[in-house]
Amino acid sequence: MNKDPTTLVRRINDSAEFNRWCGFEVVSCEPGAVELAMPWRKEVGQYSGFLHAGVVGALIDTACGFAAATLVGPRLLAAHFSVNCLRPASGQRFVARARVVKPGKQQVFTCCELFAIENGVEKLVAVGETLLTVLPTEA
Amino acid sequence: MNKDPTTLVRRINDSAEFNRWCGFEVVSCEPGAVELAMPWRKEVGQYSGFLHAGVVGALIDTACGFAAATLVGPRLLAAHFSVNCLRPASGQRFVARARVVKPGKQQVFTCCELFAIENGVEKLVAVGETLLTVLPTEA
Amino acid sequence: MNKDPTTLVRRINDSAEFNRWCGFEVVSCEPGAVELAMPWRKEVGQYSGFLHAGVVGALIDTACGFAAATLVGPRLLAAHFSVNCLRPASGQRFVARARVVKPGKQQVFTCCELFAIENGVEKLVAVGETLLTVLPTEA
Amino acid sequence: MNKDPTTLVRRINDSAEFNRWCGFEVVSCEPGAVELAMPWRKEVGQYSGFLHAGVVGALIDTACGFAAATLVGPRLLAAHFSVNCLRPASGQRFVARARVVKPGKQQVFTCCELFAIENGVEKLVAVGETLLTVLPTEA
Repeated sequence: MNKDPTTLVRRINDSAEFNRWCGFEVVSCEPGAVELAMPWRKEVGQYSGFLHAGVVGALIDTACGFAAATLVGPRLLAAHFSVNCLRPASGQRFVARARVVKPGKQQVFTCCELFAIENGVEKLVAVGETLLTVLPTEA
Repeated sequence: MNKDPTTLVRRINDSAEFNRWCGFEVVSCEPGAVELAMPWRKEVGQYSGFLHAGVVGALIDTACGFAAATLVGPRLLAAHFSVNCLRPASGQRFVARARVVKPGKQQVFTCCELFAIENGVEKLVAVGETLLTVLPTEA
Repeated sequence: MNKDPTTLVRRINDSAEFNRWCGFEVVSCEPGAVELAMPWRKEVGQYSGFLHAGVVGALIDTACGFAAATLVGPRLLAAHFSVNCLRPASGQRFVARARVVKPGKQQVFTCCELFAIENGVEKLVAVGETLLTVLPTEA
Repeated sequence: MNKDPTTLVRRINDSAEFNRWCGFEVVSCEPGAVELAMPWRKEVGQYSGFLHAGVVGALIDTACGFAAATLVGPRLLAAHFSVNCLRPASGQRFVARARVVKPGKQQVFTCCELFAIENGVEKLVAVGETLLTVLPTEA
């Protein structure tokens, strides 16, 4: 299951309607770590034109879930996630870098940093974390 | 500023591209409490067809922000939000009910319950909270 | 295991050194809900004489764990907990009221309100939540 | 205010009754980062003899608050803190290393790692974060 994490993660990403609509791209993927990107479009904006906090959360939660999937496979559900919005998120492109903090048989702890990129300059705009539950294998 | 919270909240909702795309509707609105709804569409789904955790977060964060705006006006930024996913979110319609737990001059604590509605039956699928910072008035 | 939750919870409380030192008392206990109290003593204060945020967290986390134990027994570990400090916590006595939001085979979601009592008047000073993992039974 | 952060932080630590009782020691302190330690004693244990989750939270919240104080002074209140318990916390000594993620005029975002030390070997047992509100200066 973990033999080719990139193929697995790209397949999950392609099969999720919301990810496709948002334009999530799996940039890179290794055991325990994933980089996910999204270009800016006005459709992901909140009322004053920054990236909507919901999309900030979606990028962080998705990247965290993918990082976990590279280690334990796709049978996962997010139980809890949280987001700290450090700065108004504004840029031409957004990159979420997630990693596994602690894998486990029952649950996986992950964390993520979200960067906005404007004219080639990266700025940290949010940090977050997701606690995922590993679903039991069906008999 | 608080005289007509419904008008204010509907105006913010209409001016946010992401809210319009998702189909967020302000169902009701009173001082300190807001109900926000969204119909199911496949575009808001994750890879196995449930509501994407990112949209779960978007509904909760948005409803919480609106509840806060009814008391302190629109000059607010979400500093922190968190979501507990209690059950896979599946339904024809989703309703987020947010309320202010503690208003303040510098920050507003809010919480929210998210229900999925299937054939008229409501089921609690997620709970969450948002801590909002009140922006200082410009001189 | 759930036949007499009060006995179970009091036994856990009595066997925890930290709970005894802090003076935690199990006031009441029913399936899915626990009330835990603690008298004020200067030893639980932070530098300006309010209840230390760590003790706020300890009361909330402990009450949440006890509420979960009434439904699924004592084989539990807190995976995540969070606390919102609404007001400086000052009083003669503190009462934490926790309840189970969603029980499960693998995890239990709980939440808690913490009140300070001063001259008989209760004031909500903090809210919090704990996500507990149910440990697998040893074979 | 920030001229000598170590003196400031040690003074706050010494003036907090709970910190003294727990045996919190400020190991090191630089602008934006603090290391706080505590020896194991049975009084800080939960019912099966691990470090009580409340004390885990107290160490994390305290170290985070001190890290913030090195940059913005002592007029701070914790608004929100959260803790992820990665492993049962067992050791002869515990060390919390906190740093400021993003300082600000109204709020400071911080994070912390907690290590257990057993026979000279460090093990990461918990991670957490605190969002602190900067109190306005009195006129």
